[in-house]
Amino acid sequence: MKHIIIIGGGFAGLNAAKALGNKRDVKVTLIDRRNHHLFQPLLYQVAMAALSPAEIAAPIRSILSHYNNINVLQGEVKHVDLNSSKVITKFGVQNYDYLIMACGARHSYFGNEKWEQDAPGLKTVEQATEIRRRVLSAFEKAEREKDVNQQKKYLTFIIVGGGPTGVELAGAIGEMSRYTLAKDFRNIDPKLTRIILIEAGPRILPAFSEKSSSQATRNLENLGVHVWVSSKVTDLNSEGVAVESENIKAATVLWAAGVQAAKLGHTLGVELDRQGRVIVQPDLSLKNYPNVFVAGDQAHSSHQTGNPLPGLAPVAMQQGRFLAKNIERELNSLPRQDFRYINKGQMATIGKSRAVVEAGKLKFGGFIAWLSWIFIHIYYLTGFKNRLFVTMNWAWSYVSFRRGARLIVSKEWRSYREK
Amino acid sequence: MKHIIIIGGGFAGLNAAKALGNKRDVKVTLIDRRNHHLFQPLLYQVAMAALSPAEIAAPIRSILSHYNNINVLQGEVKHVDLNSSKVITKFGVQNYDYLIMACGARHSYFGNEKWEQDAPGLKTVEQATEIRRRVLSAFEKAEREKDVNQQKKYLTFIIVGGGPTGVELAGAIGEMSRYTLAKDFRNIDPKLTRIILIEAGPRILPAFSEKSSSQATRNLENLGVHVWVSSKVTDLNSEGVAVESENIKAATVLWAAGVQAAKLGHTLGVELDRQGRVIVQPDLSLKNYPNVFVAGDQAHSSHQTGNPLPGLAPVAMQQGRFLAKNIERELNSLPRQDFRYINKGQMATIGKSRAVVEAGKLKFGGFIAWLSWIFIHIYYLTGFKNRLFVTMNWAWSYVSFRRGARLIVSKEWRSYREK
Repeated sequence: MKHIIIIGGGFAGLNAAKALGNKRDVKVTLIDRRNHHLFQPLLYQVAMAALSPAEIAAPIRSILSHYNNINVLQGEVKHVDLNSSKVITKFGVQNYDYLIMACGARHSYFGNEKWEQDAPGLKTVEQATEIRRRVLSAFEKAEREKDVNQQKKYLTFIIVGGGPTGVELAGAIGEMSRYTLAKDFRNIDPKLTRIILIEAGPRILPAFSEKSSSQATRNLENLGVHVWVSSKVTDLNSEGVAVESENIKAATVLWAAGVQAAKLGHTLGVELDRQGRVIVQPDLSLKNYPNVFVAGDQAHSSHQTGNPLPGLAPVAMQQGRFLAKNIERELNSLPRQDFRYINKGQMATIGKSRAVVEAGKLKFGGFIAWLSWIFIHIYYLTGFKNRLFVTMNWAWSYVSFRRGARLIVSKEWRSYREK
Repeated sequence: MKHIIIIGGGFAGLNAAKALGNKRDVKVTLIDRRNHHLFQPLLYQVAMAALSPAEIAAPIRSILSHYNNINVLQGEVKHVDLNSSKVITKFGVQNYDYLIMACGARHSYFGNEKWEQDAPGLKTVEQATEIRRRVLSAFEKAEREKDVNQQKKYLTFIIVGGGPTGVELAGAIGEMSRYTLAKDFRNIDPKLTRIILIEAGPRILPAFSEKSSSQATRNLENLGVHVWVSSKVTDLNSEGVAVESENIKAATVLWAAGVQAAKLGHTLGVELDRQGRVIVQPDLSLKNYPNVFVAGDQAHSSHQTGNPLPGLAPVAMQQGRFLAKNIERELNSLPRQDFRYINKGQMATIGKSRAVVEAGKLKFGGFIAWLSWIFIHIYYLTGFKNRLFVTMNWAWSYVSFRRGARLIVSKEWRSYREK
């Protein structure tokens, strides 16, 4: 009986676990700091009050409950001792025969960690709820404000970073202010909202073709989003951002600019790239530790094209399943294979009825792209119930122009103490 | 044009606003600290991971958006100056012709406010999420614990207070541990969970008949809940509770014992009862201030029976509508009327298929009572979409024995900082 430890219940870890579920001679322990698997591609919809957290997150324990050989533990891994094959957690030490590390990534503020306070990123349910709180509260504050300059500040939303997440956030704020909130306010005109998407590079969606990129720009502009390219944020605080010599006042700044791999990689003492990703062999193992694998956003795997594979859900899912298969091969005395990513394409959505899709030579945008986006995201969502509810929520929003989860939730749960 | 200020968007305030919506010669400003109206009777289902917060809460602004004469402001009222007819908020001063105060109630720890930290009550979305976090985390901690005494502590849940909320919480934990979680854990048997409902009085559900009360006790016991009556909690900390000379170790303690009215009543300088409720005239106005009314949980209205009306949703809803009607009468030069509560009955639910219902002479329990409970709660829930989603969620849970919102959400949104 071999013991396989998986750290992380994201796309890579969960898919590895499922593929090892109920296999003979294998015992799996999956450890995650959180109790839920999160469908991150839809997280911006929680931040934008369209979906509830529970609709895109499911308990890892429950997803894996019908595999009797899998143990799920919620808790924190302190470090990994590669030489003695041990995982040291806050609740004890575990030995492994194989280890799969899939701890994901978090935001990088490029050395300006203090910016996080004023510009949350979007990686967790908590961050999505915090962004929702900030965006909705900004409209509430603008409504009761008499000073025009203050009102303008509350109605200015800045998104830093023009990748898919930044584009999706900007599009959703544009649509929300134009349609969903327009009728609900008396003292402000939500259409006056300024939404600025700031990208340091020469165009948004740099991983897409130039055509898709300019199509996305046009779609965003139609929703009232100003797209600033070749613009670098040089400072950021609670008053707004500085873009080189310019200062823009904004009450709400969101960060979608850079990522870095989870810190657990730093405890290994192995080679990392500049983003903290662990550099892996073609079979995703570590150079001198063939029984230790790294997958998903935490891995730097570049044997296929020379460039590291992007931090996308399909990469992580394929890597997770690949690792399970390779371990099984080895246990059956077959040689290991190298990982090959099958690129099925990429997509980004802009507002309620536009998207850009690229799959091989096929590149298209507009409404059909948006329908494809909907279909694929529903298809990959975990759990029958979640699929049903998300579909219905979207249908309802589409028809009613309303958003289903417009809750401002405070960070403090204790009874409100008046002074 | 008369200006009516309503403080609080709960059942009383919202119903008053709706009844005043689009009426001639009336301008309404509704002020609430929160942006959402909360359907409190179902809040325990959020705490018990069955529903998402957004399914039982809707933005006040959105509920009232089609009434052009209503302004909604999210923010905090600092105090009310009765003599100059002014409401002083953090964002300016507002004059009123009529004032309706409906600020609700919060928990009372009978002078032991420090107990709140270790025994959250259930009045807000934040508290429900915190209770959900504590209950689900206790199972997770028990799963990874090797020490049997510690495990027992994690699996002991104490609910203080045997009113409807306490009974509903205890029943839901019983059901959750027996059915929903049973399959998901490997190292613990969730059936070993100890759930203790502690009531200081001689029986639970004291507002119900003795028959209903003993029927509820039997139903709870069938779900594995220990019901301790005539038991007073004398101390409480992070290790558990003391009931007179006995100490019970428990990682999770929930508070459903006492309420007190919102503190804003204390700033008025008028007569309050022991629970801080404002003592009102038969028309719900203040003695020397006929243009100021108090409704809902914040009001002490006892002219009808000699006893103050209970803090129930139907009382608040009827009072809200009554006030709107009385103000309209006065504006049409008709005399005011006195408030009369029409008691349509009361109900409490125990677990997934049992309830007790009392309506006049009609008293019944069991499955039929539970169906009535479901029907009435769906009927009164705000918004078509919420009704549909809650119904579907319940149907799904009923068939699958799963709970739809088993998320442990942390209080900290910032990126996890490893040490």
